[in-house]
Amino acid sequence: MSSLTLNGIVVDDTFAEAFGMAATAIVVTAATRRWAEIAAASFTGFATSVIGCGVEAGIDRMVLPDETPDGRPGLRILLFGFDHEGLSRQLVRRVGQCILTSPSSACYAGAAGRTRLKMGGSVRHFGDGHEVAKRYGERRFWRVPVMDGEFVCEHETGLVEGAVGGGNLLFLGREDAGILAVAEVAAEAAAAVDDAILPFPGGIVRSGSKVGGRSGGIVASTNDAYCPTLKGRPGSALSREIGSVLEIVIDGLSSTAVSAAMRAALHAATSVGAAQGLLRVTAGNYGGRLGKFQFHLKDLLA
Amino acid sequence: MSSLTLNGIVVDDTFAEAFGMAATAIVVTAATRRWAEIAAASFTGFATSVIGCGVEAGIDRMVLPDETPDGRPGLRILLFGFDHEGLSRQLVRRVGQCILTSPSSACYAGAAGRTRLKMGGSVRHFGDGHEVAKRYGERRFWRVPVMDGEFVCEHETGLVEGAVGGGNLLFLGREDAGILAVAEVAAEAAAAVDDAILPFPGGIVRSGSKVGGRSGGIVASTNDAYCPTLKGRPGSALSREIGSVLEIVIDGLSSTAVSAAMRAALHAATSVGAAQGLLRVTAGNYGGRLGKFQFHLKDLLA
Amino acid sequence: MSSLTLNGIVVDDTFAEAFGMAATAIVVTAATRRWAEIAAASFTGFATSVIGCGVEAGIDRMVLPDETPDGRPGLRILLFGFDHEGLSRQLVRRVGQCILTSPSSACYAGAAGRTRLKMGGSVRHFGDGHEVAKRYGERRFWRVPVMDGEFVCEHETGLVEGAVGGGNLLFLGREDAGILAVAEVAAEAAAAVDDAILPFPGGIVRSGSKVGGRSGGIVASTNDAYCPTLKGRPGSALSREIGSVLEIVIDGLSSTAVSAAMRAALHAATSVGAAQGLLRVTAGNYGGRLGKFQFHLKDLLA
Amino acid sequence: MSSLTLNGIVVDDTFAEAFGMAATAIVVTAATRRWAEIAAASFTGFATSVIGCGVEAGIDRMVLPDETPDGRPGLRILLFGFDHEGLSRQLVRRVGQCILTSPSSACYAGAAGRTRLKMGGSVRHFGDGHEVAKRYGERRFWRVPVMDGEFVCEHETGLVEGAVGGGNLLFLGREDAGILAVAEVAAEAAAAVDDAILPFPGGIVRSGSKVGGRSGGIVASTNDAYCPTLKGRPGSALSREIGSVLEIVIDGLSSTAVSAAMRAALHAATSVGAAQGLLRVTAGNYGGRLGKFQFHLKDLLA
Repeated sequence: MSSLTLNGIVVDDTFAEAFGMAATAIVVTAATRRWAEIAAASFTGFATSVIGCGVEAGIDRMVLPDETPDGRPGLRILLFGFDHEGLSRQLVRRVGQCILTSPSSACYAGAAGRTRLKMGGSVRHFGDGHEVAKRYGERRFWRVPVMDGEFVCEHETGLVEGAVGGGNLLFLGREDAGILAVAEVAAEAAAAVDDAILPFPGGIVRSGSKVGGRSGGIVASTNDAYCPTLKGRPGSALSREIGSVLEIVIDGLSSTAVSAAMRAALHAATSVGAAQGLLRVTAGNYGGRLGKFQFHLKDLLA
Repeated sequence: MSSLTLNGIVVDDTFAEAFGMAATAIVVTAATRRWAEIAAASFTGFATSVIGCGVEAGIDRMVLPDETPDGRPGLRILLFGFDHEGLSRQLVRRVGQCILTSPSSACYAGAAGRTRLKMGGSVRHFGDGHEVAKRYGERRFWRVPVMDGEFVCEHETGLVEGAVGGGNLLFLGREDAGILAVAEVAAEAAAAVDDAILPFPGGIVRSGSKVGGRSGGIVASTNDAYCPTLKGRPGSALSREIGSVLEIVIDGLSSTAVSAAMRAALHAATSVGAAQGLLRVTAGNYGGRLGKFQFHLKDLLA
Repeated sequence: MSSLTLNGIVVDDTFAEAFGMAATAIVVTAATRRWAEIAAASFTGFATSVIGCGVEAGIDRMVLPDETPDGRPGLRILLFGFDHEGLSRQLVRRVGQCILTSPSSACYAGAAGRTRLKMGGSVRHFGDGHEVAKRYGERRFWRVPVMDGEFVCEHETGLVEGAVGGGNLLFLGREDAGILAVAEVAAEAAAAVDDAILPFPGGIVRSGSKVGGRSGGIVASTNDAYCPTLKGRPGSALSREIGSVLEIVIDGLSSTAVSAAMRAALHAATSVGAAQGLLRVTAGNYGGRLGKFQFHLKDLLA
Repeated sequence: MSSLTLNGIVVDDTFAEAFGMAATAIVVTAATRRWAEIAAASFTGFATSVIGCGVEAGIDRMVLPDETPDGRPGLRILLFGFDHEGLSRQLVRRVGQCILTSPSSACYAGAAGRTRLKMGGSVRHFGDGHEVAKRYGERRFWRVPVMDGEFVCEHETGLVEGAVGGGNLLFLGREDAGILAVAEVAAEAAAAVDDAILPFPGGIVRSGSKVGGRSGGIVASTNDAYCPTLKGRPGSALSREIGSVLEIVIDGLSSTAVSAAMRAALHAATSVGAAQGLLRVTAGNYGGRLGKFQFHLKDLLA
C-alpha cells in the first residue's frame, strides 16, 4: 500500500468501507440543559453496535432554546439501524424507557423524510386513554399525563434515506496513553460535525474486529492483524515500533457528513500526533466487497 | 390511610412493595477514572426497567485503586434481572459491547456467590484462539488481545441471592422544579448507600405506572391516581394543592440495602422539603399482592 | 413603570445599565479537551466581580482543533477589568498560576487590538533564561521549559476597545426552584452568544446589590427592594406573589454582544417561564446616572 | 541517592519537604449537589499557590445531607494561607464573591479550633442591617436577606493548628501522555484521603520550580533539573530515557493527612505505572533547610 503524509504523519492510501443504514433523529428537551443531558445519556447508552445492541445512537449536537418547539434546552440524538422495522422498534422502546421516564422531558422529531417512524403515536398508549392529541400546522403531538404534568411527544419522526454507518479511522502509535490522547482529539473533532455521531464509548473503539473467526459460528472476532501483542505473527499489519492502536467509528445521516467528520478527525489527529507518538493513520475495509460506501483517505487530505 | 410526620412533612403510613430479583455485580477499571466512567455510562445506559430493557443497572460506587485487582481506578456496577439466564445474557452482551470496546478497560467480578455467571468465559471467544487464561489463587481471568493491548476479563462473577428490585418513594408537592430538587437530593442520598442503585435517568422517574390498562393487552400504563392533570377525576390520590409528583426507585443486593437507601432518601427529602414545596411522601405498592418485600415507611422514620 | 409582554410574561419597560470596561481574550489549548477545561476552570475561578476579585472572567466558547494555532482542542476565555493596568496584572498572574502550571497547556492571544497586553512576554521569565523566542509571521511566542516539555505562550494579546460589563436581567417568580430553572435556561442561552460571558457561579447571581448602604463606608449592600423576606417594607419592588428573584449578569466584548446575549436570555426565559412560575422580567439600573450603556428591554422583544 | 522499589518502579530514597501553614475549612451547601459544586468550583478557582493567589484551596470531600446543618447536599472546602490574617482576608472575600452570590447556597464552619476566623460575622454586613442573628447551642449564624430568600452563613469557622502545605511527589517517565495518566491516578488516590487537597489544576503541576533564578529579583523559576528539554545540560536530574515529569502537590490539615495522601498516591502510581512508562518516583525538597516537615518516601512503601 502506498502512503501519503499529513502534518508529517504517514497516512495509508486506503479507504474506510461503510454501509447503508436506516437512520432517524429526535430532539429531546427538558426544563434545564442538565436534565436533557441525563435523559439523552440513558437513551444513547448500550448503543455501540447494531449487531449487539439493536441500534447505534449518539448525541449529535446541542439544540438551543430558540431552536426547539417548546423553547427549552435540547439535544439532538441520531439513531442508526439495519432497517426501518428494527429502527422503529428501538426508537419506541428507548423513548418509552429513557425519555418518557425522565423528569420534565419532551421528545420531538429531529429529521424530516417521507417515510415516517411512529414515536408519540406508540408511546401515547401509556396514557391509558387520558392522552390528548395536539396539532400545530403539519405536526402532530401527544400530551400524555404523567406525575410531573404531561409528557409531550411528537406523533412521528422521519426516516433518513442515504444514511451511512461505519466510517472509520485507525490511529497507530507508540504507546497507549499517547494514542488515546490522539483518538480523543480526533473523536471530538468528528463529533463536532453536524449529522454525525460516534457510537462507541467516548467515540473510540479498541476492540477492532474482523468478520468471522477460526472456529465456525462466530460473527466477529479480534482483528489480530492490529493487535500489538500478536505483532510477531504472520498476518500482522503492525511494524515493530507500534505499541497501540485505536479506532474511531462514525455514523452519519449522509455520506457527506461522514466524509466531513473523517476529514476533521484526520486533520486534528495528525496536528497533535507527533507529540503523542502517532506514527500512522489508516482505515478499515473489507476489500470493497461488503459495504456500499468507500471513503478514501487521499480525498480527505486537503 | 393514617399518616406520620418527619421533619414537619407528612409521611403516609404505607409501604413500598418490592420484588425478588436475580442480581450480580462487576468492577470496571481503566487507565484513568474518566475512562472507567465513560465505559460504565455506556454499560448502564438503556437499563431503566427490566421489562423494557432486559436489565436494570447502575453505578454502585467508586472503587479506589487500592481496592481493584489491577491497582487502577474503578467503578462497581450492579445489574438486576428476572432470572439467572436473562441476567447472564445481558451481562455478557453489555460487557462485549461497552467494556471490551472501551479504551484501556478491564472487567472483574464484583460479587461473590456460589452460583456463577460467565463473563470472561464467554467474551474470551472474541480473542479467536489468541486469548490466554490466567489464574491468581481461586480467581480465573482471560487476557484477550485487542488493539491497545489486552482486555483482561475475569472468567465469571457471582449471582447474588436475595436481591430486591423496586424499593421506592413518591414525593408530592406544589411545583415541578421544587419537587425535582427534592427528588435530586433524595436520589443522591439513596445512591450513596452501598449495594444499592437507582436505575432510572438521574435516579428519578416521573412516569409512575399501574399494572395493565383500560384496553386489554397493555402491560403497564400511567398511574392516573398520581397525575396532577387528572386531579379532578374519581380515583385521584392527589389533593388540590399537589402540582407535581416524582418517584425514586431503588434496587439493592439485599433488603437491608434497599431499606437503608429508602431511609437515607426519606430523611434527606424531608429535611430540604419545606423550602421546596414538598407536602407529602408516600410509597407505591400493589396491596401486598405481587411483591415479596414490604418496606414500611413508619420503620424508616428513626 | 409601564410594562410589555413576551411569551405571556410581563417584561418591565426599563433598561439594564452597563459600564465601559477594559477587556481581553485568550485561547487555552491542551493535549485533550478535558485538560483545556481543567485549566480554564482554574483560571476563571474567583472572578465574579471586578471589585472583589480584581477581574471578571469566563469561558466564551469551545475552540475546535482546526481553529487553534497548535491544532489542539481549546477554549476561549474573556477577561474584564477596570483598566488596562489592572487587567494586565490579573492576566499575567492567572496565566502564571493556572495555565503555566496545568499539564500540556498552551496559551494564545484571543483578541486583536492595537493596544497590547503582555502575556508570554512576562510569564517567560519563569524560564530563567532557558526560554526561547519564536516568531510566526506577525505573531511572537515563547517556549518556556517545564517538566512535561515546553509551555508555549504567545508574547501578548490585544486590548479590546468598547467592551461592556454589567448587562443584566432579573427574573421574578413564585418559588426558588422554578426561578432557578428559568435562570439556568436564560444563562445558557446568553452564554451561547459569542463574545459574551456570565461571570457569576453558573452564570447566575442571587445577591443583587445596591450602591452603598445605611452605614457609611460600605461599597455595596443587599438590594433590599428585591429581597422576598423584606417584601412588606416600604421601598420593596416586589408584589405579594413574588417568592424568589434571580439575576444574570453579562459582560461582552461589545455592546452588540451584550445586547444579543440579553435578547437570547429574555426569549429563552419567557418561553419556559410560565410552567416555572416566572411572573415578571426586569433589569437593573441606576437611573442612567452611572453607566455609559443602556440596554432597553423593549428593544429586545423582537 | 540510593533507591527503593515499589511495584517494580524505582522510588528515590528522599523526602518531600513541606511547610507549616495556617488552614481552615468550610462546608458549602445548596438546594442540589450540582449547585454546591458550582459554588465550590468558583470558590476554589485561582487558588493554586499562596504566593500567587493569596490562598491554596480545594474540595476535600462530598458531605451527604445527613451530615450538614441544613440537611442539604454539601461539600467541604479546605483553605491554606501563610498566616491567620491572610487566610482570614481570603476567606471573607471568597465567601462574599463566590458563595453569597451563588443561588441557594449556605456556608458553615468546616473546622473546629480555638482560634476563630470570622465568616458570617463579616459577610453579614452585606445585609445592610436587615440581617438577623441566630444561635443553635454553641453555634452562631447570620441570615442575610438576598433575592432568593436568605443566605445563611455561620458566624465564624476555626483555625486549624498544625496544617501542612507542600507535600509532593514527582513522577518521571517516558512520555507525556503516559505520565499524565499516572499523575491522574495518583492525584485521585490522594484526593480521596480526608483532610487533604491538591490545589493545582486537576491536582497536577507541570511547572515545577526552584527558589529564585539566575537574574536577581525573581521569586521562583523553572526547575531546570527536571525539564526534559534541558536534559543534556549540567545539573540535569534526568537520565536519557526520561521524556516527561509531572508533580502532585498536597496540602493537609495535619502531617498525618499529608502522609496518608502521599502514601495512597505512591501506591496507586506505581501500581499502574509500568504500563504507562513510569520509570521513577521522587519528591521535591530544599535539602531540609526551608520546611518544617519531611515526608520520607521510604516510610510510605508499606
